[in-house]
Amino acid sequence: MTDKLIIFDTTLRDGEQSPGASMTRDEKLRIARQLERLKVDVIEAGFAASSNGDFEAVQLIANTIKDSTICSLSRANDKDIARAAEALKGANRARIHTFIATSALHMEKKLRMSPDQVFEQAKQAVRFARNLVEDIEFSPEDGYRSDPDFLCRVLEAVINEGATTINVPDTVGYAIPELYGNFLLDLRTRIPNSDKAIWSVHCHNDLGMAVANSLAGVKIGGARQVECTINGLGERAGNCSLEEIVMAVKTRRDYFNLELGIDTRHILAASRMVSQTTGFVVQPNKAVVGANAFAHASGIHQDGVLKARDTYEIMRAEDVGWTANKIVLGKLSGRNAFKQRLQELGVQMESEAEINAAFTRFKELADRKSEIFDEDILALVSEETVLHDKEQYAFVSLSQHSETGERPEASIVFTVDGKEVKGQSEGNGPVDASLKAIESHVKSGAEMVLYSVNAISGSTESQGEVTVRLQNSGRVVNGVGADPDIVVASAKAYLSALNKLQSKADRVAAQG
Amino acid sequence: MTDKLIIFDTTLRDGEQSPGASMTRDEKLRIARQLERLKVDVIEAGFAASSNGDFEAVQLIANTIKDSTICSLSRANDKDIARAAEALKGANRARIHTFIATSALHMEKKLRMSPDQVFEQAKQAVRFARNLVEDIEFSPEDGYRSDPDFLCRVLEAVINEGATTINVPDTVGYAIPELYGNFLLDLRTRIPNSDKAIWSVHCHNDLGMAVANSLAGVKIGGARQVECTINGLGERAGNCSLEEIVMAVKTRRDYFNLELGIDTRHILAASRMVSQTTGFVVQPNKAVVGANAFAHASGIHQDGVLKARDTYEIMRAEDVGWTANKIVLGKLSGRNAFKQRLQELGVQMESEAEINAAFTRFKELADRKSEIFDEDILALVSEETVLHDKEQYAFVSLSQHSETGERPEASIVFTVDGKEVKGQSEGNGPVDASLKAIESHVKSGAEMVLYSVNAISGSTESQGEVTVRLQNSGRVVNGVGADPDIVVASAKAYLSALNKLQSKADRVAAQG
Repeated sequence: MTDKLIIFDTTLRDGEQSPGASMTRDEKLRIARQLERLKVDVIEAGFAASSNGDFEAVQLIANTIKDSTICSLSRANDKDIARAAEALKGANRARIHTFIATSALHMEKKLRMSPDQVFEQAKQAVRFARNLVEDIEFSPEDGYRSDPDFLCRVLEAVINEGATTINVPDTVGYAIPELYGNFLLDLRTRIPNSDKAIWSVHCHNDLGMAVANSLAGVKIGGARQVECTINGLGERAGNCSLEEIVMAVKTRRDYFNLELGIDTRHILAASRMVSQTTGFVVQPNKAVVGANAFAHASGIHQDGVLKARDTYEIMRAEDVGWTANKIVLGKLSGRNAFKQRLQELGVQMESEAEINAAFTRFKELADRKSEIFDEDILALVSEETVLHDKEQYAFVSLSQHSETGERPEASIVFTVDGKEVKGQSEGNGPVDASLKAIESHVKSGAEMVLYSVNAISGSTESQGEVTVRLQNSGRVVNGVGADPDIVVASAKAYLSALNKLQSKADRVAAQG
Repeated sequence: MTDKLIIFDTTLRDGEQSPGASMTRDEKLRIARQLERLKVDVIEAGFAASSNGDFEAVQLIANTIKDSTICSLSRANDKDIARAAEALKGANRARIHTFIATSALHMEKKLRMSPDQVFEQAKQAVRFARNLVEDIEFSPEDGYRSDPDFLCRVLEAVINEGATTINVPDTVGYAIPELYGNFLLDLRTRIPNSDKAIWSVHCHNDLGMAVANSLAGVKIGGARQVECTINGLGERAGNCSLEEIVMAVKTRRDYFNLELGIDTRHILAASRMVSQTTGFVVQPNKAVVGANAFAHASGIHQDGVLKARDTYEIMRAEDVGWTANKIVLGKLSGRNAFKQRLQELGVQMESEAEINAAFTRFKELADRKSEIFDEDILALVSEETVLHDKEQYAFVSLSQHSETGERPEASIVFTVDGKEVKGQSEGNGPVDASLKAIESHVKSGAEMVLYSVNAISGSTESQGEVTVRLQNSGRVVNGVGADPDIVVASAKAYLSALNKLQSKADRVAAQG
């Protein structure tokens, strides 16, 4: 009999915690749906007590997603745990994931608590949580750098209180496979009731070994749950990447002999969705989901590979969702064809009104661009989703000109709370001039910390998708805009970022 | 006593082999200089027999770089090996790296040779090479998937013939740390003369474990050389990344207890240089060199980290070259200040004429942009370097306009072999119109397979750096262009790519 390896995705919680990767409630729901499609076992949807926005996102996902267990993170105190339980009420299967730091450094510098205080709080938190929800995960933060004796004491106690999953995080990405695997094995051997819980690994990639460490935790340490994120998204160098761990276990089944529930064919779409939503690009030489990961998928044919694909390829590109770029729709495509393609792409819209709005934008796009690729549709829908949020600013029209020897200039018309305004400015380039034209009116004072462009399908004939990251008073947001005209896409992205800054400010104000 | 771990960089050979990452001779030299500054022990500069261009690049690097050993790859035949030796003549320390596949699959499908034939050819190749150069590395391609008995037989024989380094590649990225480490250990234990050679690891990242596999080869298998590339550049998911392996060995010295010659402070500059030259972006969550790899370096201050940096950081950002973005130069800066800054940035120019040309471009830029960052200077110099090659096309001026509701249009003036021509076109956006305006005259028929934009310092006030990848008749090239106006940068990048396509076609023609 083979064991099952539980895939716990934390793109929406630990991934979102990455500076600049914050997502709106609707963006999170869209990604949660894709994770459900992937057949992820557990989706960590957020940290309900951290903000009203996070609470609402966890709640919405718990009410909508039916196949995966929905989990909320929670500090180890009653108030946080009660809030998590409340957000999870609508879930088919709910999990509370509570944590407290156990390393000497974190207890002293971050928590300013003694080990005995941490021990008591961990125990009480799990006891309290267990009264609200059956499925309880406990994480000793910075576990891998914690004193093993103390850790054994804490973990034995929380299992006694009813924790069903014990997760041992390498919070700072310091582990080495052999050491991490044996660290887990040692804990499981020493803790008398260790067989009462499923053990889990949570590794960060600071030294480039998150995947190997996780797998050593599974193979040597006996863990049966892996915590990971799409594209390895996460703070600093990120988390263990879902696509790599899944394909490693699948490709090396001879060694791991573990079952996985994941439908790998949806991996690439998930990767693109997360990258488009957060503006975090995937490098071409990223394993599994990078543009070059499969030689023959890059559109470049190489003699060696053509001779015999298996001489160089250990996985099949199709198995993770790579397909040839297809021209699917054009000017003459009707609403039904559009709707069907949305379904095939796994995009679910909330209402007929939403489909109509997306279709209108599709027709506008088809007027200006003869070949509409899947990527164009996803970009269009992703832009549509952003618009769900309270929209203070909206793009109307833009005119810009640049000429060698002259200063580029732009004038833009946009609406502020429905009222049209016009801004005009010069700039270092046409994009700079357009954004300055917006600022000439808005005067947000926001600082731009990232500007990035993805040509959606490799050539400049496709739409450009622009991500603008703004920072203001400690808040960081990403705005995304897509258009065949890169200057227009930039202006749309900037306005979308301003909207998000505003809606974030509103939410914070509402929280008090 | 601690052993030394030899760092063998193959960015210029295995890295360059990645589709779309091809570099000119001058770009390679610039990177080789940066690798020397990093104190890389061995630089694999190319594959001398593969083309005249590669031969010249190896030769130029061998004649210029004095501190690192310079290596050329070579198939296992006399003609290739002689050519490699010839290219390496000027080197202070030269190494020939000869290889032949030893896995059943590769021998049968790629080489169409019997194991005995492969055995004989490997022996003879090393014997022949040893008469030309003292330092000989031998690689059994797809070694990790080869029959261990056959591999022992081959490796014992080539060590007897004088191979001084034995490299065991995981060519397809199939290994697992524990298995790979033990595979090496097994070979070293069974081969009677294994102590006469230094053992080396060469891992690919298809399952995300190249770094961990390499380190297991070192720790368990006793290897003392690691083959790696900057940013993990390489075919498919790339090679083991230099920055990760180096920082893992340094950060976990308690476990590895190995000496390294690398000056880590030059890592970030090397990463940026390779990324700018190849157009292969580094994702923000890339370990060590990604924009988010160090929380406090991203410009976003987080409470937790500020409280005590070591609660979350296991490395110091400064140790790998991260510094605050400084405004270094402006309109009033003189030639000496510019020259000095170039030296501080580690950029070495061939002649005073080159410095003058770069300075002229710097002044042009300073006229249009008040704050010049280090990144601007590097982009400017990188563009300058590209111009060394035979330049058929050169940018003169551009005028473009786009307005909502109208079709964007552009007209461009550029030179063809020194003669001015003008092109005009409409397009889906201003960038598309500009590139079509170029094509309206050039009619290259090239297909664009990548268009990417990097805003050099995070905001649209900085220059945009555009990479255009063109494909024509099986040749793939990258062109890079930088300008505060993204449309102009795109046109420059396109012209630069056309120049490279042309110079590559010339080289192929010259080779016959």
